[in-house]
Amino acid sequence: MVFKKVSRIKIPEATIRRLSLYDRCLEDFLKTGKKVVSSSDIARKCGTNPAQIRKDFAYFGEFGVRGVGYYVENLQGDIKRALGIDRSWNCALVGAGNLGFALLGTDSLAKRGFKISAIFEQDPILVEMGSFQDIPLFSMEEMTRVIPDFGIKIGIIAVNPENAVKVALRLVDAGVKGILNFTPSTIKVPSGVILKNVDFAIDLEGLAFQLNNQ
Amino acid sequence: MVFKKVSRIKIPEATIRRLSLYDRCLEDFLKTGKKVVSSSDIARKCGTNPAQIRKDFAYFGEFGVRGVGYYVENLQGDIKRALGIDRSWNCALVGAGNLGFALLGTDSLAKRGFKISAIFEQDPILVEMGSFQDIPLFSMEEMTRVIPDFGIKIGIIAVNPENAVKVALRLVDAGVKGILNFTPSTIKVPSGVILKNVDFAIDLEGLAFQLNNQ
Repeated sequence: MVFKKVSRIKIPEATIRRLSLYDRCLEDFLKTGKKVVSSSDIARKCGTNPAQIRKDFAYFGEFGVRGVGYYVENLQGDIKRALGIDRSWNCALVGAGNLGFALLGTDSLAKRGFKISAIFEQDPILVEMGSFQDIPLFSMEEMTRVIPDFGIKIGIIAVNPENAVKVALRLVDAGVKGILNFTPSTIKVPSGVILKNVDFAIDLEGLAFQLNNQ
Repeated sequence: MVFKKVSRIKIPEATIRRLSLYDRCLEDFLKTGKKVVSSSDIARKCGTNPAQIRKDFAYFGEFGVRGVGYYVENLQGDIKRALGIDRSWNCALVGAGNLGFALLGTDSLAKRGFKISAIFEQDPILVEMGSFQDIPLFSMEEMTRVIPDFGIKIGIIAVNPENAVKVALRLVDAGVKGILNFTPSTIKVPSGVILKNVDFAIDLEGLAFQLNNQ
C-alpha cells in the first residue's frame, strides 16, 4: 500500500485523530501476533466502522490488497509515516509545575516519539537543580540559545496562564515550529507555526453530551 | 432557533468538539458586546468555514433567522443545552498526584460547569489532610458511600496507570455514569457508562502531522 497524501485536499482533523487511534489498535494486533487484518477487524477494535476507515485511508492513496486485507506491520509503518511519527521529535517543556511534572512522569509521549529534551522554568530554585530525570533544566532566558542547539521543533506550554503569551513569543523567536498550549490563554502564532490548544473541559463536554443523549 | 437533536442520527464526535469551540467563540463575542453574528463571523473567529458551522448546527434543528443571523446569547444557550452544560456536573477526581493537582489548580473546568466535589486518594497521609482547596479528600474505600451521597456522575481518573482499571471498576460500582481517563491504561466499562480517554500524544501527533505537511 502506498500511503501518502494524494493531493492538497485538506485532511479533516478528525481523520488525523483517528489515524492515531488506528495506529494504537494496530500496535495491539501486533502484540497478539496478528499479521493481516481487515477494515472490519480494525473497526471493531477502534469502535468505528469499516467505511469510515476506508474513507480515512483514502486520503493517503491506495487501499489494502483486495481479498487479503492490510498487512498490520506495513499499515502501521504507513500510518506512522503519514503522521510524521516514524521519526523522533525533540520537544521543550516550558513550566516545571504540577502539569509539567505530570507530563514528565509518563512515558506515553516518549513511546510515541516525542522526546522532552529540555525543560524551561522561571523559578531560579528549580533551575538550580540543573536537571530533572536527566533532562536539563534551563532558565527562560536560555531558550534562544538552547532551542536551536538541541534541534527542538515543538514547545509544550505548561506555565501559569498569565505567562503563556510571553512564553509562546519566546518559543517562536527561538525557532520552534509547533506549540502545544495547555493553558486557557489565547495565543497567536505567526503563519508557519502550528498551534494546538489542549482543553480538558472539551473532553468533559463531550462526555456530558453523551450522558445527556443516552 | 430550536436547537435540539432532530433525530437518532449519530452526531459525529468532531461536531461535538466544534460545538464546544463555537461556545467559546460566542463567549468572546458577548464580551465585546456583539449581539448578532453570522456564520461567517463565527467561522472567522473559530478558524473553520460557514458551511461547516451550518452543517454542525443542522444536526440540532433549525438555522438562525434568514438575513439576520444568530442572536449570540440565544445561540450560546442553545449550544450549552445541546452539550448538556446548561447545568453543573458533580465530578470526582481520583488521584491527588501531579496531574490531579494540575486539574485542581485551574478554574477552567469549574467555569464550564464541571465541579470537582470530592477527591479520592490512596495515600493515607494525603487523605488525613481531610480536604484540599475546600474539596473533601477521601480514601478509595469511601467511594461507594460518597459518590451517591454527593450526586457525582463523572469520575476523572488521574492515578498511576497500574491502578486505573481497579479505580474504574470502583467508580462504576459506586454509580458513576461517565469516566474521563487520563492514564494510558485500557479501561472497559459496561454499557450505559461512557468512557473518554485523554491522550496528550494524540495532540502532539496532530501537530507532527501538520508540521510534516506544511
